[in-house]
Amino acid sequence: MALNKSPVKGMNDILPEEMAVRDYAVSLIKETYKSFGFTPIETPCMEHIGNLTSKQGGENESLIYKIMKRGEKLSLEGVASPDDLVDNGLRYDLTVPLCRFYANNQNKLPNPFKALQIGNVWRADQPQKGRFRQFTQCDIDVIGDSSMLAEIELITATSTLLGRLGFRDFTVRLNHRQLLKAMAAYAGFPEESYDKVFIILDKMEKIGFDGVSRDLLAEGLAQASVESFLSLFASGADQDLLPVFADKLTGSASPEDGRHMAESAVNDIRTIMDSVAAVKNDDAQGSFRLIFDPTLVRGMGYYTGPIFEIALKEFGSSVGGGGRYDQLIGNFTNLQAPACGFSFGFERIVSVLMEQGFAPPAPGKKLAFLAEKGLAGDGLTAMLAEAARERRAGATVLVATKNKNSRFQMEQLEKDGYTEFRSFNN
Amino acid sequence: MALNKSPVKGMNDILPEEMAVRDYAVSLIKETYKSFGFTPIETPCMEHIGNLTSKQGGENESLIYKIMKRGEKLSLEGVASPDDLVDNGLRYDLTVPLCRFYANNQNKLPNPFKALQIGNVWRADQPQKGRFRQFTQCDIDVIGDSSMLAEIELITATSTLLGRLGFRDFTVRLNHRQLLKAMAAYAGFPEESYDKVFIILDKMEKIGFDGVSRDLLAEGLAQASVESFLSLFASGADQDLLPVFADKLTGSASPEDGRHMAESAVNDIRTIMDSVAAVKNDDAQGSFRLIFDPTLVRGMGYYTGPIFEIALKEFGSSVGGGGRYDQLIGNFTNLQAPACGFSFGFERIVSVLMEQGFAPPAPGKKLAFLAEKGLAGDGLTAMLAEAARERRAGATVLVATKNKNSRFQMEQLEKDGYTEFRSFNN
Repeated sequence: MALNKSPVKGMNDILPEEMAVRDYAVSLIKETYKSFGFTPIETPCMEHIGNLTSKQGGENESLIYKIMKRGEKLSLEGVASPDDLVDNGLRYDLTVPLCRFYANNQNKLPNPFKALQIGNVWRADQPQKGRFRQFTQCDIDVIGDSSMLAEIELITATSTLLGRLGFRDFTVRLNHRQLLKAMAAYAGFPEESYDKVFIILDKMEKIGFDGVSRDLLAEGLAQASVESFLSLFASGADQDLLPVFADKLTGSASPEDGRHMAESAVNDIRTIMDSVAAVKNDDAQGSFRLIFDPTLVRGMGYYTGPIFEIALKEFGSSVGGGGRYDQLIGNFTNLQAPACGFSFGFERIVSVLMEQGFAPPAPGKKLAFLAEKGLAGDGLTAMLAEAARERRAGATVLVATKNKNSRFQMEQLEKDGYTEFRSFNN
Repeated sequence: MALNKSPVKGMNDILPEEMAVRDYAVSLIKETYKSFGFTPIETPCMEHIGNLTSKQGGENESLIYKIMKRGEKLSLEGVASPDDLVDNGLRYDLTVPLCRFYANNQNKLPNPFKALQIGNVWRADQPQKGRFRQFTQCDIDVIGDSSMLAEIELITATSTLLGRLGFRDFTVRLNHRQLLKAMAAYAGFPEESYDKVFIILDKMEKIGFDGVSRDLLAEGLAQASVESFLSLFASGADQDLLPVFADKLTGSASPEDGRHMAESAVNDIRTIMDSVAAVKNDDAQGSFRLIFDPTLVRGMGYYTGPIFEIALKEFGSSVGGGGRYDQLIGNFTNLQAPACGFSFGFERIVSVLMEQGFAPPAPGKKLAFLAEKGLAGDGLTAMLAEAARERRAGATVLVATKNKNSRFQMEQLEKDGYTEFRSFNN
C-alpha cells in the first residue's frame, strides 16, 4: 500500500539545511544555560490526561492531542463521550510536566533547582505561517528561589544566549503582576473585574488607547475608574515610565493595599533593571534594552510577580516570555515552592536565523569519495583506508557509489558543502 | 487539583545525571556519523494512522498509541469501532517515517542520501527492565546505493562510534537474506515455508540445535529436509563457517537458483568482511569482531540482502541491528530506491554507560555563588559582575540564594560537581 507522503497537517519534515541550524542553536542553548548553572532534564511527551486538564493551561487545554486507551480498557460499551476512551495526552507546554517532574523527583534535586528543557509540544491549533502543531519549546526555570536573583539570572542568561546567536537588537519588556493589581486598585475597579481589565490592557498595542477605553466601558466598568486607569498611561512612551507609575501608585491617591503592592513591585522591578544593566556586556549580549512596560500582561493566569517578554527586531511578535509563578507548584502538588521561568519558541529563533541566511560555523574539510561502479578488492580497500585517514585528521568524508549522472551528483554535493572530489576505480 | 506525580506508565523522567550522559552520547553520535557524511534529519512524532498500519511494521503495529480525532470530525455517532475515532498515531519506529520523508522530499536530497535520525518512538508494550514505552532510537540509513559500500560504511561508522564511547569488546554478526534462502533451498523446503523456517532458526541460541530440529518437524516439514538443513550447522562454532557454507551451498548438491543466490550472497559477505577488516583500527574502534553467523535472521520481513546485529559484551542482548531493504521504499511509495540501514536503542547504550559509572569529560571549573538573604545594591551588582567575569573565562557559575541550611545546600552542590563556593553579603 502506498504511503500518504505528506506529514500530518501542521507538522514538518526537517531537512538537512534546517537541521544544521537547529543543531547549532541547541548546542549554544545548552552551553550558555549550563554556564549559568542550569541542568538539562527531560520528561515524557505524554502525560496523564487529568494532569493536562486541570485548568492551569488556559485555552491550550482545548488543543490537546488525546491518546486512546488500549487493550481491554478500550471499549465503546457505555461510552457517553469520546473522552471516556482517553487516558493520556500529548503535552501542550513544558510547565505542567516540570511541576509534575519536580513533585516526583524533588528529593533528588538541588535546591534551588535550575532546569533547562528543550522538547516538543503539541497543540491542535489552526496552522498558519510560523505556527505549527508540533513545535519545540525551550524552557528555563528556577524553582526554590524567592529572590529576584532568579529573574536577573534568567534575563541575563537569555540575553547572553541571543547575543551569542548573533542577534544585536532585541528588547526585554518587564512588568509585574502586583503592579498591575495596584493600577487596578488605584483606578477603583472592583477586584473581580481585574482579570478582564488586564485582558483588555494586553491589547493596548493592537487597539490603542481609545480601543482600550472603549472596551473597558463596554464591560460596564465605571467611567471615572476607566479615566483614572487610563490617566496612568498618559505620560507618553518616550520617557522613563517607572518613576511616573511609582509616584502615582505609591502616592496618597492610591488605596493602602494598592500602595503596598506597588512599593514592593517597584522595588522588584528596580532591582531587576539595575542589576541586569550593571552587568550588561554589549559584546556578549548585543545592544539589548530592558524596559519597563506597564501594558505587558502575559496571558497565563498563574503568574504572581515579575513578568517579561522578549522581542527580536527581526521577528515581528514576541519570541518568548515568562515570569514568576510562586503558587503554581503548590496548586499542582503538595509542595510549596516559589518558581520563575522563561519559555521561548525554538522555531521562531531558527526561522529568523534561516531568513538571515545563517550558516553554522564551517565544520572543517568536506571530501566526497566517489567509487566507480564495481570497485572491489584492493581498490576498494585503498579508498576506505584513505577515508579513514582523512577522518582521523578531522575531515568529513562521504563515501558513495558514483552515479551515472556524476556531474549532477557532484553539483548536489557542492551545494551540501563538499569542496573536494576524488574518484576511485580498480 | 493535585497532579498525578508519576510519569505515564512505562515512561521516564530523565534526571540531570542521566541527561549529562545522554547529551554526551548524542554529541558523539552526531559528530561521528557526520564525519562519515551522514546528515541529521527529523520527522514529526505523529504519522497518519494509515501509514503506520500498512503491514510493514510487523507486531509493532499492534502496539501503536493512537490519537483521537478532534473538533467536528470527532463524533460517536455511527461509530462501529474505536478505530473510527482515530486519525493519527505515534510512530513506533523511524523506518516508516524515513520512507515517507524520502518520498516527500526526494528532489531536495542528494543521491545517495545518508540520513541520521535520533528520535523518540512509542510502543505500548509490557514495560520491563530496559524496555520502555517511550524510548529513543538512533537510525542511520543509506538510500540510493545498491553496492556493499552502504553496509561497509554503516558497520565501520557504528563500530567507530562504539569505540569512541569507550566500548572495547563488541561483536557485529553478519548474515544475508539470500544466503538464508539458499540454505532453505539446499534443504529442499517448500518456498512457502521459508518464513516459518527462518523464525525457528532465529531461536537457535535460545533453544539449541535439538530445539530447532523439534520445532521444524512440528511444523510438518519433511524429516529429510530438516536433517539436510541442520547438517549445514554441524561444523561447530569454533571454525570459520563462511567457507563451509559457501562450499555446500554453491556445490552441486544445491539446486540451481539456490546456487546463484548463495554465490552472490557469499560474495557480498566477503566484500563486507574483507573491507571492514582492512580498515579496522583497534585504537578507534576497540577490538570488535565482525563474524559471519548463519543463524542470524532479524525479525522484520522487509530485509532483502545483508543483515547484521551488534552485541556489546556489557549488555546481554543486542543493542541494535539492521540490514538491506531494497524493496521497502518501493512498496511504500512510487519510488524504487535501494536502501540499507542500522538502528540502535539509545537507552541501551546509555544504560551500559551509566552502569559503568561513566562520567562525561569534565566541563571545566564549577563555581557556586551563594547570596545571603537580602543581598542588594552594590553587593548584588558586585556578585553578578564577578559571575559574568568567571563565565567569560569559561567557568560554570551557579548564582543562588543561600538556604537556611547552607551546609546541606553545599553538600548537594558538591555532588553536582561544584568545587568552589563563594558567599556574598551587603
